[in-house]
Amino acid sequence: MATVEPPPSASAPLDGRELRAWRGLLRAHASLCKALDAELEAAHGLPLTTYEVLMYMHDAPSRKMRMCDLAESILLSRSGLTRLIDRLQRDGLVARQSCDSDARGAYAVLTEAGVRTLDEARATHLAGVRRLFLEKLTAEEQELLGDAWERVLPAPGGCAGATPGDDCC
Amino acid sequence: MATVEPPPSASAPLDGRELRAWRGLLRAHASLCKALDAELEAAHGLPLTTYEVLMYMHDAPSRKMRMCDLAESILLSRSGLTRLIDRLQRDGLVARQSCDSDARGAYAVLTEAGVRTLDEARATHLAGVRRLFLEKLTAEEQELLGDAWERVLPAPGGCAGATPGDDCC
Repeated sequence: MATVEPPPSASAPLDGRELRAWRGLLRAHASLCKALDAELEAAHGLPLTTYEVLMYMHDAPSRKMRMCDLAESILLSRSGLTRLIDRLQRDGLVARQSCDSDARGAYAVLTEAGVRTLDEARATHLAGVRRLFLEKLTAEEQELLGDAWERVLPAPGGCAGATPGDDCC
Repeated sequence: MATVEPPPSASAPLDGRELRAWRGLLRAHASLCKALDAELEAAHGLPLTTYEVLMYMHDAPSRKMRMCDLAESILLSRSGLTRLIDRLQRDGLVARQSCDSDARGAYAVLTEAGVRTLDEARATHLAGVRRLFLEKLTAEEQELLGDAWERVLPAPGGCAGATPGDDCC
């Protein structure tokens, strides 16, 4: 496949410091997610990805989010998110709501049953996040991490590239 | 389901600093992986997870890794990894090798074709990691992140809990 070659310096091997920062991020994220997922599954039968989707909706105004904003917030394709929301809708934890500008279902709304499920799981999850992650960092390190993530994250875009078929308005 | 309640302080809501550090990690990881995956797919037809699996094997002694160590290194279940390795074996990028102590295939070995595929993709990937992540951080911040990840990561365990059926020896 045709690609534009990046300049050599940009594609040079990572040095030790860069490797520790980048691979450490990948490994720490994988390790934390596996441990937190296992805790949530064991205590509440809830996978971590489901917990995160419910949590983003819980914190959104009117407890509802556009499907595309949800897909942007977590590491799921739009089709993967659509399947997950289908399942949560069948379980009664989430409802779909249409947009004013579009007759198809394009918002996901947390139901009362969803709020209860989330409340039950949250104590387990937050205790795990503290024990496995936050307690390993000083307050200064937590601040620095928060600053770093803000620089790494792109400015909120709002469904760039979405088309009507994407279950997004 | 029966659960042991954590003490109230451990499960109190996260404060602003904790939220920025924790949610920022989740969002930054998701955003980086989506962008890097899209770049690798567009330029080389290679998903990021496949790239990571090939890369871990490339850096291992004799370019081979135990299946369980691979599964620990990335965010994949053992069954998900087994399916991915099946696919890579069909494509000729990876071969299976049995353990001395176990007749079943339990190591994955990078082939010469796997090395070539990885070499082609690496320039694209490293340029993306630099542009999207490392260049947003000072050298001191990279050091501090590396230190933090080492505290967050559990000590290497080596296939704890693996059973023979797990494609692991």
